Amino acid sequence: MAAPDALPRADARDKAVGAEIYSADHTPLDCLWAGAKRAGVAHAAITGLHIEAARAVPGVVAVLTRADVPGTNRQGIVHKDQPVLAGSRVRHCGDAVALVLAENRAALAEALGRIRLDLTPLPGVFDPLAALLPDAPLVHPDHPGGNCLARGLVEKGDATAALETCAVVVADTFFTPMQDHVFLELPNGTARRTAQGGIDMVVSTQAPFRDRFEIAHALGLDPMRIRVRAPYLGGGFGGKDGATVQCLLALAALNADGRWVKMVWDREETFLAGYKRHAARVALRLGAQHDGSLLALDAVMHFDAGPYAHLSGEIMALALEHAAGPYRIPHTRLQGFCAYTNNPVGGAFRGFGVVQASFAIERLMDALARRLGRDPAGLRRQNALRRGESNGAGVAMAEEAGAGECLDRIMAHPVWTGRQAWKAAAPPLTRRGVGLAVALNAMGYGRGLPDAAACKLELTRQGTFRIFNSVPDMGQGNAGAFVQMAARVLNQPPEAFALVQPDTRRCLPAGSSSASRTTYTFGNALLGACRAMAAKLAARAALALLCDDPARLCLQPGAVADPATGRAVPLARIGAMLIRDDRICVDQYVMPVVANPPDTGREFKLGFPHRFFSHGACLCAVEVDELTGLVRLADCVTAVACGTVLSVQGVEQQMHGAAAQGVGLTLFEDMALDQGRIRAGDLSTYLIPTALDLPDLECLIVADHEPTGPLGLRGMGEVGIHGPGPAVAQALADATGLVVRRLPIGPEDVLTALGEKQS
Amino acid sequence: MAAPDALPRADARDKAVGAEIYSADHTPLDCLWAGAKRAGVAHAAITGLHIEAARAVPGVVAVLTRADVPGTNRQGIVHKDQPVLAGSRVRHCGDAVALVLAENRAALAEALGRIRLDLTPLPGVFDPLAALLPDAPLVHPDHPGGNCLARGLVEKGDATAALETCAVVVADTFFTPMQDHVFLELPNGTARRTAQGGIDMVVSTQAPFRDRFEIAHALGLDPMRIRVRAPYLGGGFGGKDGATVQCLLALAALNADGRWVKMVWDREETFLAGYKRHAARVALRLGAQHDGSLLALDAVMHFDAGPYAHLSGEIMALALEHAAGPYRIPHTRLQGFCAYTNNPVGGAFRGFGVVQASFAIERLMDALARRLGRDPAGLRRQNALRRGESNGAGVAMAEEAGAGECLDRIMAHPVWTGRQAWKAAAPPLTRRGVGLAVALNAMGYGRGLPDAAACKLELTRQGTFRIFNSVPDMGQGNAGAFVQMAARVLNQPPEAFALVQPDTRRCLPAGSSSASRTTYTFGNALLGACRAMAAKLAARAALALLCDDPARLCLQPGAVADPATGRAVPLARIGAMLIRDDRICVDQYVMPVVANPPDTGREFKLGFPHRFFSHGACLCAVEVDELTGLVRLADCVTAVACGTVLSVQGVEQQMHGAAAQGVGLTLFEDMALDQGRIRAGDLSTYLIPTALDLPDLECLIVADHEPTGPLGLRGMGEVGIHGPGPAVAQALADATGLVVRRLPIGPEDVLTALGEKQS
Repeated sequence: MAAPDALPRADARDKAVGAEIYSADHTPLDCLWAGAKRAGVAHAAITGLHIEAARAVPGVVAVLTRADVPGTNRQGIVHKDQPVLAGSRVRHCGDAVALVLAENRAALAEALGRIRLDLTPLPGVFDPLAALLPDAPLVHPDHPGGNCLARGLVEKGDATAALETCAVVVADTFFTPMQDHVFLELPNGTARRTAQGGIDMVVSTQAPFRDRFEIAHALGLDPMRIRVRAPYLGGGFGGKDGATVQCLLALAALNADGRWVKMVWDREETFLAGYKRHAARVALRLGAQHDGSLLALDAVMHFDAGPYAHLSGEIMALALEHAAGPYRIPHTRLQGFCAYTNNPVGGAFRGFGVVQASFAIERLMDALARRLGRDPAGLRRQNALRRGESNGAGVAMAEEAGAGECLDRIMAHPVWTGRQAWKAAAPPLTRRGVGLAVALNAMGYGRGLPDAAACKLELTRQGTFRIFNSVPDMGQGNAGAFVQMAARVLNQPPEAFALVQPDTRRCLPAGSSSASRTTYTFGNALLGACRAMAAKLAARAALALLCDDPARLCLQPGAVADPATGRAVPLARIGAMLIRDDRICVDQYVMPVVANPPDTGREFKLGFPHRFFSHGACLCAVEVDELTGLVRLADCVTAVACGTVLSVQGVEQQMHGAAAQGVGLTLFEDMALDQGRIRAGDLSTYLIPTALDLPDLECLIVADHEPTGPLGLRGMGEVGIHGPGPAVAQALADATGLVVRRLPIGPEDVLTALGEKQS
Repeated sequence: MAAPDALPRADARDKAVGAEIYSADHTPLDCLWAGAKRAGVAHAAITGLHIEAARAVPGVVAVLTRADVPGTNRQGIVHKDQPVLAGSRVRHCGDAVALVLAENRAALAEALGRIRLDLTPLPGVFDPLAALLPDAPLVHPDHPGGNCLARGLVEKGDATAALETCAVVVADTFFTPMQDHVFLELPNGTARRTAQGGIDMVVSTQAPFRDRFEIAHALGLDPMRIRVRAPYLGGGFGGKDGATVQCLLALAALNADGRWVKMVWDREETFLAGYKRHAARVALRLGAQHDGSLLALDAVMHFDAGPYAHLSGEIMALALEHAAGPYRIPHTRLQGFCAYTNNPVGGAFRGFGVVQASFAIERLMDALARRLGRDPAGLRRQNALRRGESNGAGVAMAEEAGAGECLDRIMAHPVWTGRQAWKAAAPPLTRRGVGLAVALNAMGYGRGLPDAAACKLELTRQGTFRIFNSVPDMGQGNAGAFVQMAARVLNQPPEAFALVQPDTRRCLPAGSSSASRTTYTFGNALLGACRAMAAKLAARAALALLCDDPARLCLQPGAVADPATGRAVPLARIGAMLIRDDRICVDQYVMPVVANPPDTGREFKLGFPHRFFSHGACLCAVEVDELTGLVRLADCVTAVACGTVLSVQGVEQQMHGAAAQGVGLTLFEDMALDQGRIRAGDLSTYLIPTALDLPDLECLIVADHEPTGPLGLRGMGEVGIHGPGPAVAQALADATGLVVRRLPIGPEDVLTALGEKQS
């Protein structure tokens, strides 16, 4: 057998040859097509909805409106405030107001085009700070908090007083933009009503087990009669954590007479109606002593939730928890506000609030370094949290390696050690600069919200194994990691394992594929099931081998062997002898939480604080064209401490993908939002980095071991996204003197800075 | 909830009202009836078999002979030497030579009566000692060992030399007879061939999982296509451990065109063809020092196996292991021989060789006491094995309490302390005497033979539980004990548990209901499944209760509760939310064995030695009628040390039943075997004790705890049978001076002794 970390991904071959069947590939013969009519207006009262012309289109089967929704018509993961179909009011351009079922896509498009809305425009609110002013137009007039969806406060020590005593205080305000996930596979699914009145659905989703409850609540169904299957996703990044097509599709299925219905959003509808990373405003004041020791941080963060809650409050909470970055700061006062606006709906996105927090604290660390005349790397190293020290929320770091160790690794890299020579060798009309940043990212749902997974493992009659995966693989490779883990624990070749992708009827419940929790939590459940399987196999083999000490037996590829006698019994023989119930092993895992949580975040009932973190650092070298202001990323080196690495390839791919998405946020992606309307709402105007825009990405793995982790690992799918923003900003400051407070950084920002420097 | 040990047996109500469905109660509509033609001759060559007349009986469907058996035609648990249908040779009176299928029982009886056999008588062998002589007629002429089926030697120290040095040596030879189990429910079953060519069988059996392999081997079938169901048994006692009707019935089913076939042996056929306790001859020489300390034992045991091996070798091995009784004897030399004869087939019977061994050593201890002028109780107490001391096979006793503690309990009983007064108050023409005995009995299969069980436990959709029992309940109450255990561990009322009785298609594999192992081994597997269920329920409830620490949750009747919040989630809600695979918990257990076995029994590969023992003592008071020699058992008090007692009622019932069966062996049961023919082959001639023949039986439970046991218990279904034989014998010696060397004891023996005493 190949060494586990040299194994190819379990999904590689089928994806490479195009054999993998994604949700989007499920198109049952003779299925109906469903589509939603979108409002197209940011804030308005609906005074009329004319669907007769649409109904008259040949091939149209049904045109449904709010009145056709049988349940509460409300969806939302925590607060259920988002209508499946808007009735009297439109709160953002992407609101669905009608649902059409047609025999084909042409009829569907024709009918959607014929639906007419009578709208009375209402004044909108498009900025989270403005939304919280007393006279702001209300997005939900009946919401008791007005436009304030959520607020939070984390306090450790006395930051206000401590800031008074600091030798140096720096303050600034930072802005990060809305960001689209731009997953390759668009939101889609197929569904049909079952004979028992339930729903059978195949959908591109990160949370199939939760989807049942979303659909059931919105449409008044029994969640146990809803079956959701989640094949491999063509990307998710948080954008499929929460209902996209689910409720609309189920509503369509209820009206399709038992026929399959398919719904696919196109890219433009996805921009319009999909979730986005929250735009945020982060105002920080950071105080230090003369020697550079950080003493106090005051933070005020505003998040733009858009019109519906989704996970806004939870994202704000995680941002507060990470506001102090990976630094030792004795006094913190961290305030957060989530405001309803008429912008697109804010939701989960890789980094989940931490991106916004990280960018701000890292930029301000650069400002502090400047003020103190210190080198930004040294100042970071001096203040980096060590094991046992308390982070900004008062939780002690438990990891073996942290941001400091990651920083050490990138500071030893030639891109850093050779930076002066490289800069000096810049060609004419070119400026060069090098910058770095550090970050940490929590793993899991946090305290109060059980981060759980259950796993089913089957020994087949043929003596092979079937892993019933419960957490979708959106491309991050968790499914392949599961095969690797099981193969290692059961000492079988990877070919001995088949993967059943999430299916609420066949697989066991687990939380979402999100929060860097997927491989950790389900992996631990899987290992439990593997250990139960190993014990079962030994006990059953003991009978065939006449061995009275099953603990002596060991698993070999395809067999259980007795080292004492040299005899072995094939797994196929055991599999053939057991009834089905005896060929199944089940186990579950709930992620441990902070045992004695500090009294820092009293306003949070759920999801605060976190016990586990992965840590990272990022080193970027940039080249600036003095004539055009264009920035070329010349090098991007990341380091990560995430426990024992199971698959080097898997970690590198996550770090590369996260870095690329971070570079997109930093230098490319701009939705050009204008009064709630996305002006750059397609891929010809909303630009994401391609392979040609990126250097060869390099990832350094820092030695670490997570004692609670499956085979010693922690989740690390998010920590890599935080580095490029602040590292590129620092590199640009190094190259041009530009002080970046707002992302993305455009050529005009660079040209302006060059002009200022020259003048 | 009632205290666990006050719970009524789970099977009590249904059995009391006649609602329990035994195997004998399964009579499918329109089933065929099968019956065997028995040889009726102890040893003969078959020269002709005439079945035409039988075939001609109206209603007869088939008459099958050896030529119709498709497989090996051989059955047997360890050595497969017993034919399903005898072909050329008859080896005992009970051999089946033809099998008849008929539409009704009248036609069956008529046809069986019309089958004619041409037999050439062969000289028989009916005594195990005589069978081993060089010129003895051979039961299996092709058996390499001649009539010696098995032999064994256990040696510890140097008994031959040590006996030379003993101050006192006593020697004697003892005989115990064949015994019939006299279970209430006769051997029976129903079966049919399935569409897939397998067999579906409901049968009164102690070993449903093993039966599949017996049938498959004998008839050339796939064991996995054989389904065996074992309802509650109306008694077994070892007599249904091994095939009775199984292979004949399956053969009938293969020839019944898919119809159900039923086979029931009547009492006479059961005497004729069923297994029996082995008759044994035990010659002992026991040496002691002046102070009564035992020093050496030499034993030679002969067992009458009958014509087929069944478990004869294993029974002999256990007899050797127990030959030294519960005594500290530094030097032992224990030899055993199993001989083939033309008597009925020897097989498993409660006590499994230990009855024969116990009777001999206990009788000889009385002789030694007499010789030393010691009181038999004191001599026993002096030599009783203490914890850590090595038994006759060299294995260290591990139990908290042993025979000594049991002896202490009965010696403190008024029947013992008041014996002189009671004897003095004997009415005219009546003698009274009191005697006692001690014993130990191993638990489980012993080293080398995995003593295993697997258990399946289901949470129903309604929130109750289903225990899938794998080891038949023959009446000993293990099934009820399983409910008690699960109820206690899961903290639910007993009504929350339904029991599914053994069914190889629905339940998981386990060893037989035998060897005092049933409750221990399956109980441990069940407790494992219960613990897995508790963990599952906590983890699933954690989601509903938003509890991130499932370890904090606790099971309450019908619910999982969070003490921290006072909230609870009903089990019915959890049950309704889980798919079937997630409502099942499975675990298994393999009994631990002696880790470093002493080198005493080199000839035994399997099943020797044992690690666990239960211990007992028995006190009997008898009244003898001087005129008739009749013996009345006036009192019978037993004591037992068997770990923590789960159900006092359950332990008492086992001790009472075992004592009654021991009393039967001692004073009542006599098969009157003559040249291989049972003269007392029905219940009018073979007498067993009834309630009127027994005093109120009393059982004392000695404080003990078994750390490896389920809830601290050990098995104890056998240890109670050993006491009455030697205790009654000692009491008769006390009353009349009779020296008992042979069981059963008849009035003529007593009269003879009285006569001798008077003369």
